[in-house]
Amino acid sequence: MLTTTADRYPTRVPVPKPSTPRTDPTVWGSQPGPLDRRTLIRHSTTGYSVHQNLFSADELSSYAAAARGLIDKPLLRHDPRVIREKSSLQVRSIFEPHKLDESIAHLVRDPRLLDRARQILGSEVYVHQCRVNYMPGFTGQGFYWHSDFETWHAEDGMPAPRAVSASIALTENFPYNGSLMVMPGSHRTFVPCVGSTPADNFRQSLREQTIGVPYPGSIAALASECGIDQFIGPAGSVLFFDSNLMHGSGNNITPFPRSNIFIVFNSIENLLVEPFAAPRPRPNFIANRDFRPLTSIDS
Amino acid sequence: MLTTTADRYPTRVPVPKPSTPRTDPTVWGSQPGPLDRRTLIRHSTTGYSVHQNLFSADELSSYAAAARGLIDKPLLRHDPRVIREKSSLQVRSIFEPHKLDESIAHLVRDPRLLDRARQILGSEVYVHQCRVNYMPGFTGQGFYWHSDFETWHAEDGMPAPRAVSASIALTENFPYNGSLMVMPGSHRTFVPCVGSTPADNFRQSLREQTIGVPYPGSIAALASECGIDQFIGPAGSVLFFDSNLMHGSGNNITPFPRSNIFIVFNSIENLLVEPFAAPRPRPNFIANRDFRPLTSIDS
Repeated sequence: MLTTTADRYPTRVPVPKPSTPRTDPTVWGSQPGPLDRRTLIRHSTTGYSVHQNLFSADELSSYAAAARGLIDKPLLRHDPRVIREKSSLQVRSIFEPHKLDESIAHLVRDPRLLDRARQILGSEVYVHQCRVNYMPGFTGQGFYWHSDFETWHAEDGMPAPRAVSASIALTENFPYNGSLMVMPGSHRTFVPCVGSTPADNFRQSLREQTIGVPYPGSIAALASECGIDQFIGPAGSVLFFDSNLMHGSGNNITPFPRSNIFIVFNSIENLLVEPFAAPRPRPNFIANRDFRPLTSIDS
Repeated sequence: MLTTTADRYPTRVPVPKPSTPRTDPTVWGSQPGPLDRRTLIRHSTTGYSVHQNLFSADELSSYAAAARGLIDKPLLRHDPRVIREKSSLQVRSIFEPHKLDESIAHLVRDPRLLDRARQILGSEVYVHQCRVNYMPGFTGQGFYWHSDFETWHAEDGMPAPRAVSASIALTENFPYNGSLMVMPGSHRTFVPCVGSTPADNFRQSLREQTIGVPYPGSIAALASECGIDQFIGPAGSVLFFDSNLMHGSGNNITPFPRSNIFIVFNSIENLLVEPFAAPRPRPNFIANRDFRPLTSIDS
């Protein structure tokens, strides 16, 4: 069951290395599911797809309330799963919300998400990571350009880019409140990053990433080849995007927070091994090693 | 000729003060000019207007080349008119480009700009301030929410909001490369800021403004009342906006710089007096005190 551990995506290299074409598919196999052929082709070509109206307004407001509720939980005040903004100390992200709140636990096993993830990855899936990103108003700091897979491969031992992320908007994503930018098609290129990974790099990187960051030249080349799309839409919009898609976000000085729930589904045929370029694996709350496949809950 | 120096717009106050309605017009008098009635009404209502195709592609590329050329001028290396980004030290702004480059000197007296400024302000005009903003790719830091007039009143002694700024895009303004956000209609409200102005505040404020910054509550109230518009468009788009319009910009992590030439026209019936809330006036390169009205140059 374990995928080979040969390193087909070397990164955290001592000197700049050219980007390499991805050898793996984006849509795996041809498992039946809710997505039509056109959507799958678009997802495969651009590395992402947007899914509107998956959830009712009632469902959404219950998820948003749950996410807000976590911020004020006294028990979480000193919990390592709560990540704060570097300057303002406002809550930036909370990891494992699905272990902290019943309704988010439910969401993670919702067939509207699960069936899409299974169809894209061509197998049963489990949760590699789950977090709420709050991106508070006024002081929210963005996330610089990166490929998630580059980090998950280097620091978590994920062998191949056979993972897909679902981002569920809890607030409206305007073009100007730090909404996600993606480079369509960039997921077909693997960009190795320079620099070796310090032990416990995650303590720093979750607030501001400095290792696992592509060279400006690589970013400029990809942007000029692929262009930039933004994920914009009302609360409830859902973005599925490939683990190797180059993405990032600017800061948010508007009064409007840009919050989402972010769930990473990994294929059970792509289980984590030892990190490919880090001294030791990151904690389970960031890179889950409970590989039991998810079963759907009726929504 | 001198406007009264009674302070109708108190700011830099010790404790929060409620916002006050503006008592001055936005479009002054009914001087004939190139703008039609509809544009003037829109400008008066929203506090800004966008003017496309004022300049040919050739003219634009010569301005853009001139702006880029200033960055590398050895003579400017230690010039106080060159403002650098706080962290990356890349050039953020250069003041008085019209005194450093012939083509920009020409632009400032171009009748396509001058006639519009005169029509909006209902009088002859002079240049209060001129700068190139570079907003470099990858590292460009934005400008937090502010009203220009609040600063010009407090630190430069500008009596009334009878000034208008022209921003000429030298590169494409995308929704995602730190393009200007404005709150339409916010120019009708004056938002006093808390805190007294330190001497030589400009040394800090041109890199990152900390004094003359509205309370988050005032920004949130204005944003919820007015909404947010973005100034988006190809190189060559020109934005005219009122001196009291609440505006700001996020950072720019894209590889695409967002550069513009920014020219502030002030009415000769609104000449600077002593600062209303600062120990001494800012230098001439930031707040010009050569009040001779501009004469048009044939374009």
